[in-house]
Amino acid sequence: MKIAVDAMGGDHAPEEVVKGAIVAAKELNVEILLVGDQVKIEHELAKHHAKNDPSISIVHASQVVAMGESPVSAIKTKKDSSINVGLNLVKEGKAEGFVSAGNTGAVMSSATLNWGRIKDIERPAIAVVWPSKKGHIVLLDVGANAECKPKHILQFAYLGSIFSEQVLHTKSPKVGLLSIGEEEEKGNTLVAETLPLLKASQLNFVGNVESKDIFGGEVDVFVCDGFVGNMLLKFAEGILDFMYGLIKGEIKKNWLAMLGALLLKPVFKSIQKKTDYDECGGALLLGVKGICVISHGRSKAKAIKNAIKVAKESVEANILGKFAEIG
Amino acid sequence: MKIAVDAMGGDHAPEEVVKGAIVAAKELNVEILLVGDQVKIEHELAKHHAKNDPSISIVHASQVVAMGESPVSAIKTKKDSSINVGLNLVKEGKAEGFVSAGNTGAVMSSATLNWGRIKDIERPAIAVVWPSKKGHIVLLDVGANAECKPKHILQFAYLGSIFSEQVLHTKSPKVGLLSIGEEEEKGNTLVAETLPLLKASQLNFVGNVESKDIFGGEVDVFVCDGFVGNMLLKFAEGILDFMYGLIKGEIKKNWLAMLGALLLKPVFKSIQKKTDYDECGGALLLGVKGICVISHGRSKAKAIKNAIKVAKESVEANILGKFAEIG
Repeated sequence: MKIAVDAMGGDHAPEEVVKGAIVAAKELNVEILLVGDQVKIEHELAKHHAKNDPSISIVHASQVVAMGESPVSAIKTKKDSSINVGLNLVKEGKAEGFVSAGNTGAVMSSATLNWGRIKDIERPAIAVVWPSKKGHIVLLDVGANAECKPKHILQFAYLGSIFSEQVLHTKSPKVGLLSIGEEEEKGNTLVAETLPLLKASQLNFVGNVESKDIFGGEVDVFVCDGFVGNMLLKFAEGILDFMYGLIKGEIKKNWLAMLGALLLKPVFKSIQKKTDYDECGGALLLGVKGICVISHGRSKAKAIKNAIKVAKESVEANILGKFAEIG
Repeated sequence: MKIAVDAMGGDHAPEEVVKGAIVAAKELNVEILLVGDQVKIEHELAKHHAKNDPSISIVHASQVVAMGESPVSAIKTKKDSSINVGLNLVKEGKAEGFVSAGNTGAVMSSATLNWGRIKDIERPAIAVVWPSKKGHIVLLDVGANAECKPKHILQFAYLGSIFSEQVLHTKSPKVGLLSIGEEEEKGNTLVAETLPLLKASQLNFVGNVESKDIFGGEVDVFVCDGFVGNMLLKFAEGILDFMYGLIKGEIKKNWLAMLGALLLKPVFKSIQKKTDYDECGGALLLGVKGICVISHGRSKAKAIKNAIKVAKESVEANILGKFAEIG
């Protein structure tokens, strides 16, 4: 299987991206097409003695979309960007998936434009997979659409449900609509108008659910607009960072606690592994005709490797085929 | 100082409310007026040998607003509810603040109707105070208004800023508008339309901020609509519960870790104290002409006691007077 990787995307590109791709090629049994500035990529590969790695090749792209650049201008003026060239590889059948830690808006818009949307899906959505008390849950949209109509949320629910079933192997995934109370009369207009659509759908819809239940494991797919989803995504990052900081700060205050922390190291490691962004690697852009994994702009090698893993598993699960069947 | 407490509000009323009130009367040097069913309250007081406590008195109210009851129906049909009687005590000058763990919607609507709104504030908001890396931050609205107009968010910003300055003693509080990116072009329509209002205000407005920065301590007041705020509030609860569960589960797996956990007990205790809902006790309803603290429906004695503490401190800080000065 071939995965195209945007070597120029992200705050630590190309160093960390190339490093992550090398590990992925070794560990995941995939071929990697590194897309971007040939000279720079070769330089990075050389650092790791991987210039002649048969499972890694370079596809040159002369342009780079900057992290803060407007997606519209990127699409118009940068046809030869690493994002666009990478997407083309998938379109032309030269790769089966694309991974980028670059400008999220540009990746999203370019993928939608370049690959097109799945039948009946008007707005692609970004989905994250999180651990829960009972397994894994899917949350979407986490940022593709800051403003949504009820029908879009319904479409997200279908995308998330199929993803949960096919990739996470959830049997008849339970879908919940994120609101500020389980009662139907609570919530905002979007929730009130989306509720009847979800009720009338063929999904296993369980009703309105609260954000405190995301990790409970009773619901498998949580849908919301991209403003709320992105807010939750970034809040999770902030609160975990704050908690780890608090724990570290308190531990340093006395030596008995430091000893305790030493004994607890494997516990903390295991939990960090479970909750670490780098471990889940990336979010999937669902609703486009191709496998596209969007990784955090701050991704380092480990996150890139895991994003490639998500792409690989999505290809193997043939989610595109499943979307097409049901769409 | 006299604080009226809704003895019938919350999942654990009247037992836990009365228990919390007894502790508050003892520790906080306040007089408590317990509002609700006289017989039931007397029974609870008797359990704790506090029937003759001179700092606790009972004000009978014959009705109770149920947790799931519609605020509109409560206001119409339950003039003698513990909520309404408690609010009246403040209105009539017989108490200086009101605390309730009852039906949030009913408390909010009744307080607004009964006390009236502060000049220039069209919508009261619920504010929470959270710890941050550098002190404490204020987040509002966390649930009073699921749908807001830009001018309401601006009003929340004024309320939050004054609260932060007067009660938390923040000098020239920095106000941030919660969005999904610091860039002005990111966010939804509400953010886009609120931004110019905040920029033109006399507040120390620092621009759009992300939810990951809530605990950073660089911003003192975060404003958003009540749908987003409530979503974050409940998500914080869910994620902390999940994390504690993960830690406990991992620790049980080996005895060295259990020993480590024992040594770390003071650390965990200190952190739990910092992040525990019961420790902060309650959220303030800002924008009404009175001090009203809304405590979680699940509040137990400790949370009630701390909610009474928040009410006491708000009275002492004379925030109503400050609102009036500036309003």
